[in-house]
Amino acid sequence: MKPIQVGIVGATGYAGVELIRILLNHPGVELAGLCSVSFEGKTIDQVYPAFHEIIDKTLVNEDEVIDASDVIFTGVPHGVCEAFAAKALAKGKKVIDLGADFRLDKEEDFQQWYGLPYRHPELHKKSVYCIPELHRDLVPGKEIIGNPGCYPTSIALGLAPLLKSGKADAQSIIIDSKSGVTGSGRGLSQTSHYPECNEAFSPYKVAAHRHTPEIEQTLSQLAGEELKVTFVPHLLPVNRGIVSTIYVGLKESLSAQDLRQMYQDYYQTEKFVRVLPLGEVANLRNVKYSNYCDISLHVDSRTNRAIVVSTIDNMVKGAAGQAVQNMNLLFGLPEDTGLGMIPPSF
Amino acid sequence: MKPIQVGIVGATGYAGVELIRILLNHPGVELAGLCSVSFEGKTIDQVYPAFHEIIDKTLVNEDEVIDASDVIFTGVPHGVCEAFAAKALAKGKKVIDLGADFRLDKEEDFQQWYGLPYRHPELHKKSVYCIPELHRDLVPGKEIIGNPGCYPTSIALGLAPLLKSGKADAQSIIIDSKSGVTGSGRGLSQTSHYPECNEAFSPYKVAAHRHTPEIEQTLSQLAGEELKVTFVPHLLPVNRGIVSTIYVGLKESLSAQDLRQMYQDYYQTEKFVRVLPLGEVANLRNVKYSNYCDISLHVDSRTNRAIVVSTIDNMVKGAAGQAVQNMNLLFGLPEDTGLGMIPPSF
Amino acid sequence: MKPIQVGIVGATGYAGVELIRILLNHPGVELAGLCSVSFEGKTIDQVYPAFHEIIDKTLVNEDEVIDASDVIFTGVPHGVCEAFAAKALAKGKKVIDLGADFRLDKEEDFQQWYGLPYRHPELHKKSVYCIPELHRDLVPGKEIIGNPGCYPTSIALGLAPLLKSGKADAQSIIIDSKSGVTGSGRGLSQTSHYPECNEAFSPYKVAAHRHTPEIEQTLSQLAGEELKVTFVPHLLPVNRGIVSTIYVGLKESLSAQDLRQMYQDYYQTEKFVRVLPLGEVANLRNVKYSNYCDISLHVDSRTNRAIVVSTIDNMVKGAAGQAVQNMNLLFGLPEDTGLGMIPPSF
Amino acid sequence: MKPIQVGIVGATGYAGVELIRILLNHPGVELAGLCSVSFEGKTIDQVYPAFHEIIDKTLVNEDEVIDASDVIFTGVPHGVCEAFAAKALAKGKKVIDLGADFRLDKEEDFQQWYGLPYRHPELHKKSVYCIPELHRDLVPGKEIIGNPGCYPTSIALGLAPLLKSGKADAQSIIIDSKSGVTGSGRGLSQTSHYPECNEAFSPYKVAAHRHTPEIEQTLSQLAGEELKVTFVPHLLPVNRGIVSTIYVGLKESLSAQDLRQMYQDYYQTEKFVRVLPLGEVANLRNVKYSNYCDISLHVDSRTNRAIVVSTIDNMVKGAAGQAVQNMNLLFGLPEDTGLGMIPPSF
Repeated sequence: MKPIQVGIVGATGYAGVELIRILLNHPGVELAGLCSVSFEGKTIDQVYPAFHEIIDKTLVNEDEVIDASDVIFTGVPHGVCEAFAAKALAKGKKVIDLGADFRLDKEEDFQQWYGLPYRHPELHKKSVYCIPELHRDLVPGKEIIGNPGCYPTSIALGLAPLLKSGKADAQSIIIDSKSGVTGSGRGLSQTSHYPECNEAFSPYKVAAHRHTPEIEQTLSQLAGEELKVTFVPHLLPVNRGIVSTIYVGLKESLSAQDLRQMYQDYYQTEKFVRVLPLGEVANLRNVKYSNYCDISLHVDSRTNRAIVVSTIDNMVKGAAGQAVQNMNLLFGLPEDTGLGMIPPSF
Repeated sequence: MKPIQVGIVGATGYAGVELIRILLNHPGVELAGLCSVSFEGKTIDQVYPAFHEIIDKTLVNEDEVIDASDVIFTGVPHGVCEAFAAKALAKGKKVIDLGADFRLDKEEDFQQWYGLPYRHPELHKKSVYCIPELHRDLVPGKEIIGNPGCYPTSIALGLAPLLKSGKADAQSIIIDSKSGVTGSGRGLSQTSHYPECNEAFSPYKVAAHRHTPEIEQTLSQLAGEELKVTFVPHLLPVNRGIVSTIYVGLKESLSAQDLRQMYQDYYQTEKFVRVLPLGEVANLRNVKYSNYCDISLHVDSRTNRAIVVSTIDNMVKGAAGQAVQNMNLLFGLPEDTGLGMIPPSF
Repeated sequence: MKPIQVGIVGATGYAGVELIRILLNHPGVELAGLCSVSFEGKTIDQVYPAFHEIIDKTLVNEDEVIDASDVIFTGVPHGVCEAFAAKALAKGKKVIDLGADFRLDKEEDFQQWYGLPYRHPELHKKSVYCIPELHRDLVPGKEIIGNPGCYPTSIALGLAPLLKSGKADAQSIIIDSKSGVTGSGRGLSQTSHYPECNEAFSPYKVAAHRHTPEIEQTLSQLAGEELKVTFVPHLLPVNRGIVSTIYVGLKESLSAQDLRQMYQDYYQTEKFVRVLPLGEVANLRNVKYSNYCDISLHVDSRTNRAIVVSTIDNMVKGAAGQAVQNMNLLFGLPEDTGLGMIPPSF
Repeated sequence: MKPIQVGIVGATGYAGVELIRILLNHPGVELAGLCSVSFEGKTIDQVYPAFHEIIDKTLVNEDEVIDASDVIFTGVPHGVCEAFAAKALAKGKKVIDLGADFRLDKEEDFQQWYGLPYRHPELHKKSVYCIPELHRDLVPGKEIIGNPGCYPTSIALGLAPLLKSGKADAQSIIIDSKSGVTGSGRGLSQTSHYPECNEAFSPYKVAAHRHTPEIEQTLSQLAGEELKVTFVPHLLPVNRGIVSTIYVGLKESLSAQDLRQMYQDYYQTEKFVRVLPLGEVANLRNVKYSNYCDISLHVDSRTNRAIVVSTIDNMVKGAAGQAVQNMNLLFGLPEDTGLGMIPPSF
């Protein structure tokens, strides 16, 4: 089969670099074009020396990438992909956006949280938001995939079985998430300056993070009712990984065994979701550099709450890996193609 | 004034070492005796080379420490201090226990969570649990102080004004705490082995940590009703510091401004509690190596919950520093004597 | 082709775990048997949860591993592999030892540095020490490979072209190496206890590390004269990676350009050695999790010394990856089979 | 005694912040004025929240600082302090420069390494470069102190006794130094961006660092002959601390015992230099947050080289602490006033 020609716009951002790393070992694709506004004209290995003697493609503009590609991944600021996608679709290409432009169903949510209107409303009928384990049936016929955010992925996978079961108090959800520093990208800032980030820890954007509407959208669908969550992200002094500790009131008492069984049943055919044995606690070190989501289940019977711990690598299942999984879906390849990375234990 | 003669039992544990560091710069005390079961006969600077040419006291047995001291700090496993305190009090000495033996009011709580009975019930009438900002009035006349646990200190200080106000739903409290690795002490374990602890993150003892009854005891007193909390600690890959992110339902709506003002009023005369300006978020890097507790206040008006972020250095305000503050109380010294450590910003 | 049946003795040590991670993605092998003395009877994913749902082989004893395998990797304390290899060879199996038993040509060196005699001298004729880039021609006909140490690999690759050229003062070599903490293995110790290893840095075994004779053996061969080096390793607070900064006096003046060209020429056909462009400096972050060795070349013309910076991942090119490279050599597979891991940039 | 009125120009740089932290606990001074070009008009605790409720001085311009102060510390880019010092001395004030303007005796060195001429040559007669342990006798009568660089401090203290002894081959010195990230200051850069600095390690400015002439100047004086060194700094993923591993050829053989005794004798009256017992190795964790310099001595008898390991906290003995030590000298206070910080072991 002719390899899929793949382009990346925003190739020198962290998600772009991770896409390159994964796609170079994907047997069904060819890297056709890499675009970087900041480094156009340089080769990718000049910007990221880890790629020396592996790939030395020159960074070009976005039009060259569109022309060379069947599908283009975009890792760009919100508002930018929409215009890009209009151009790409006009040339018959597909788009997988790792940003926020195609994640929210309701334009008013986008306006409220991102401060921008939809400039190409028609594109949003051709697009679908897709966490494969939850939404893969919606992909056929679509031309754009809104790749989920890192926090929402860990949270939606962590809550889907429980919300579907109807046993949770859907209005009681509190989510305390912690993310590695790659989550805030390549851009420099005082908070990611090593001496101020190392040996430090803090929440940020307390109950005000832009992933909130995306989280609520998916959880509301799962619960079958409109719900609101309290969501507090924290910056964790590690390079990679997200741990979401999720607190949910239970409508009735439920044993940890039954809770775990519910998750086992729900995810039994899912390769990338691992429901841990009772007694283990999900730890980001066991999913780093891989596409797995590990989930451990706990019950606080004293207060009748379930506690779900869900962990992913924010750059893989939370960004580039899930995007490749979505590409596989879009092109009818086995969903795990190119995603066999085994998490190193250290 | 004759300096207070101070002893430390468990001097080579992390809390012991931190006590030495603080007490060496305390103008009103003399280090009279250091006891370490593991290293008896060695000098303290042989075990901790950071002390070279600063202090080279030989580690002795506990009886020698009792004889030489007016007050003894104990940093020993639970169940050990009780017997020690009986001996020390019999000789007219005072005891400040950094362990769990004198923290819980009800023996049944101790039995349930620590699996031991009280062997010297009479001592518990001579002892008091004391977070100085909350309990200092209870100290006069006591001979033993149960120094609070690290997590409970951050949590009780973080919730006192709100619970006192009666505006919180006292049964709704969820506490997501994160602690640096010194919290688990000097003892070796796979979870604190560098390659498995670095670039890792996970909760532990989910809804089952022994600090739970201590937390509930203090919060119930503050709220004026029996309450239960969901408490989940996490191991954070930093040396020092605790951040507790605390979620509380509000009985009525409350602005962040009003919430902050409530805390300002409550803590206005407290040197070691800093209520941060609105817009700032408490970060452990700003309290490291100091006796401060920083608290930031947030309101999630969408779900009508208050979010309190409370941070301390687990080894200082969460252990040795607070113990020295308690010693100052016990001996009538200004409470901040010897505690002027300024947190370095990096 | 029938897959090679591969066994690992010491499977729960860090090198063993890394071998499993690599071999699971190697297209020409099957993991036939895993031995762990400490965890016999458990499954590998019970010991390392990162392997959940990927591999759940039960850990067995070494005899079962020998019977099931064509080739066995051993990651065991020095002195242990020799006896094991005698058993394995008697059954017609091959052995790749990641320990020290088959690294030194002279028994007297082994006795001096490891305190043990050779108990099976005959095996040492059937074995070969092999850094593939330097010694691959010696492998044919051998049944045991002494897989090189991590420090010696980084150093020998860093110095080979210069020593071969005859332009170096071979007696002037000073090597300042820094290794990540996985280098000291899974075993617990105070020096790898997180709070004492994090935010710390120090040399260890100053001019007394057991890798010294191995380094001198290879460098002497390359230089064509007996030489001694000063070698000082340091413990670096990172999980993985070695950086060796190597100082060599030059017999004649040499420009950085010429020095780099010499290395380019020497390594031009080597996939796993990357000679960096002038102006770049080798950084372990660019080789982590991969089998690459990055080398940067510098000249201090003020003192007429060459400075070579050589970096590898101590667990991959410094252990498991090179062992797999050696296995490929031993079985006539392309040397890079299963070693296509691309270093992530973060 | 009236407290010395102290000003800081560059108060929001890392050295400035560290000066504030130290001086606030110094019994003989008052912080009279803080200048920051970037944050003029803000209060220092708005920029560094660690100072909340401790100090809230408003940042002003440099002229206000001069007027308010008896002595001014400057932490500013090279070339800036010279002009400032001219103004300050004209008003009868003293200056302690933590930058490079007053470190080099020869203007040609300054021109070569910093690319600037001296604009006020007359000031250089009123200034002195001072590592107190080596140069305190030169201070009386001076009005400006050139506070030494961090690397040069660790290196000069590490080599002084050996060079003075005449037993070293002064032309053979190779220095491999490793510094924590605070050494590169508050300014943002890709190399100190957390995800690229964490789990990374590399030399930089190989044999080309600007501290080289300062190192050579001091070492040449000590050796009594002009010498050149090879100096290679590395960026270490820790916040604080420098370890310099120094290699020196010996003219005659020397035991480690004799070498250590030589250092003991030399430094016996020095409070801030600790010569470690044989068998211990200097580790930056034992000097962090303190003004100590720890030195361990080693001999590689196989190659007849001495290896000196010297470690300091780059922000304290390598910057602010030494500057305060110099201020004490300048004003006739006991040299250790305000410098009693005890290194925490973790």
